[in-house]
Amino acid sequence: MTEKGSAAPVARTVLQQCLQARLQVKPADEQSEAQFVQIERGMVIYICFFKGATDDVLSKMVSTLLNLRLCESDSGKLMSVLELPGSLLIVPQATLGGKSKGRAMQYHNNISKEDGLRLYGAFVSLCEKELTAAAAASGGSGAEVTVKHGTYGNRQVLKLDTNGPYTHLMEF
Amino acid sequence: MTEKGSAAPVARTVLQQCLQARLQVKPADEQSEAQFVQIERGMVIYICFFKGATDDVLSKMVSTLLNLRLCESDSGKLMSVLELPGSLLIVPQATLGGKSKGRAMQYHNNISKEDGLRLYGAFVSLCEKELTAAAAASGGSGAEVTVKHGTYGNRQVLKLDTNGPYTHLMEF
Repeated sequence: MTEKGSAAPVARTVLQQCLQARLQVKPADEQSEAQFVQIERGMVIYICFFKGATDDVLSKMVSTLLNLRLCESDSGKLMSVLELPGSLLIVPQATLGGKSKGRAMQYHNNISKEDGLRLYGAFVSLCEKELTAAAAASGGSGAEVTVKHGTYGNRQVLKLDTNGPYTHLMEF
Repeated sequence: MTEKGSAAPVARTVLQQCLQARLQVKPADEQSEAQFVQIERGMVIYICFFKGATDDVLSKMVSTLLNLRLCESDSGKLMSVLELPGSLLIVPQATLGGKSKGRAMQYHNNISKEDGLRLYGAFVSLCEKELTAAAAASGGSGAEVTVKHGTYGNRQVLKLDTNGPYTHLMEF
């Protein structure tokens, strides 16, 4: 959703809940097999930055996404991914910035590759910091939560297993 | 994406490419096991209607979504799901209509359950009609394509296997 009355968004995210998600971070080549990262229960964040996005937006984005009550506890109560606690899989997804023109999608509003890579890296770091802090504050209940993420610019080969993805759109 | 300059959208869709997708259409109960539908290669359409949506929007939606070049052929060329040809899995997803207020999501702009159910059914029928017509026109290349869909109002227990979901947002 776009905040009402605000300027054009500088970032778009799509959020899905998962029981397990696995993402390729390095394709196979002649020397080695493909490499994957995997999370168990938690949230997948697909993310795309637009032109005009700066570091200023990251803190609000991370705070909002990680504290929104989007996840379902075992008892069916809605809670945030930090409260659950759940893991995060962060997937760069430039296609989210597409606008249709005729039968083709165009990506003119997407951020440059260099700026996108930098913001994506900073976003991932901030998520790691928040999740670690929340896990420490909860006294280490034993649930192992992690932040995993895709490689910016790569094809995001993804496998997702959900108990209902509860797909949400959040723009910033 | 929202069409520039247009009024508030009446429908929101998120599109993902898949190699295989499996969706629960009936949960297990005391009498029977859970029931699932499954597609192989094709596109998953998550869909949510807003207040004010009428049948008038459906034809343009289906035509746009099924003809946009979002799918990758074996040779890496972008083509539409009709051209591929690929299957469709249509997933009602009311959460897509959410707006955040504080830490909660609100769904005040979502269509009523009755109207949503009717529009969803009509959308699925129209997709079936288009896919069947395209398959017939292509002379039946042997590729078996189908339209499968979730049950409106149910929890959408989903498993997704992709070669890159290429997540897109389209609003109407």
